[in-house]
Amino acid sequence: MTQFSARVTVRLKFGVLDPQGKAIEGSLNALGFEGIASIRQGKIFDVQLEATSKSAAKDTLKAMCEKLLANTVIEDYSVELVA
Amino acid sequence: MTQFSARVTVRLKFGVLDPQGKAIEGSLNALGFEGIASIRQGKIFDVQLEATSKSAAKDTLKAMCEKLLANTVIEDYSVELVA
Repeated sequence: MTQFSARVTVRLKFGVLDPQGKAIEGSLNALGFEGIASIRQGKIFDVQLEATSKSAAKDTLKAMCEKLLANTVIEDYSVELVA
Repeated sequence: MTQFSARVTVRLKFGVLDPQGKAIEGSLNALGFEGIASIRQGKIFDVQLEATSKSAAKDTLKAMCEKLLANTVIEDYSVELVA
């Protein structure tokens, strides 16, 4: 078993309303920041896991996203091994 | 003014307890996933903004992090221009 470091990014799908992002945009405007066209907020998970191979690690991470980390109705995920 | 796409990542500093990450770890174990050494959750902001130059865009994004997006007492941030 090898130890892998992975980064899982979960973002709202294109077209899904992001009220949190809109609120941040409003706050930044209120703070005087100009020129912001849009802000969308997502989640990132830094995962350390053991697996037999890179592809096994990716498969496990994708299964984690499907089952728990992402709501695939409104969110997209991407999995990236960093070490 | 040029339009820039940026990705801002905000993570808890090393050593800061991450109860949300621990809860996710527990849930994944309960779902039958094995070999997870640790999970830490962070935030990602996809920002579209206008600025006069790359360095001006980066400076604006760093200021946004310092003022609103990150709690610099417990969180680190990184800013990356993607286009």
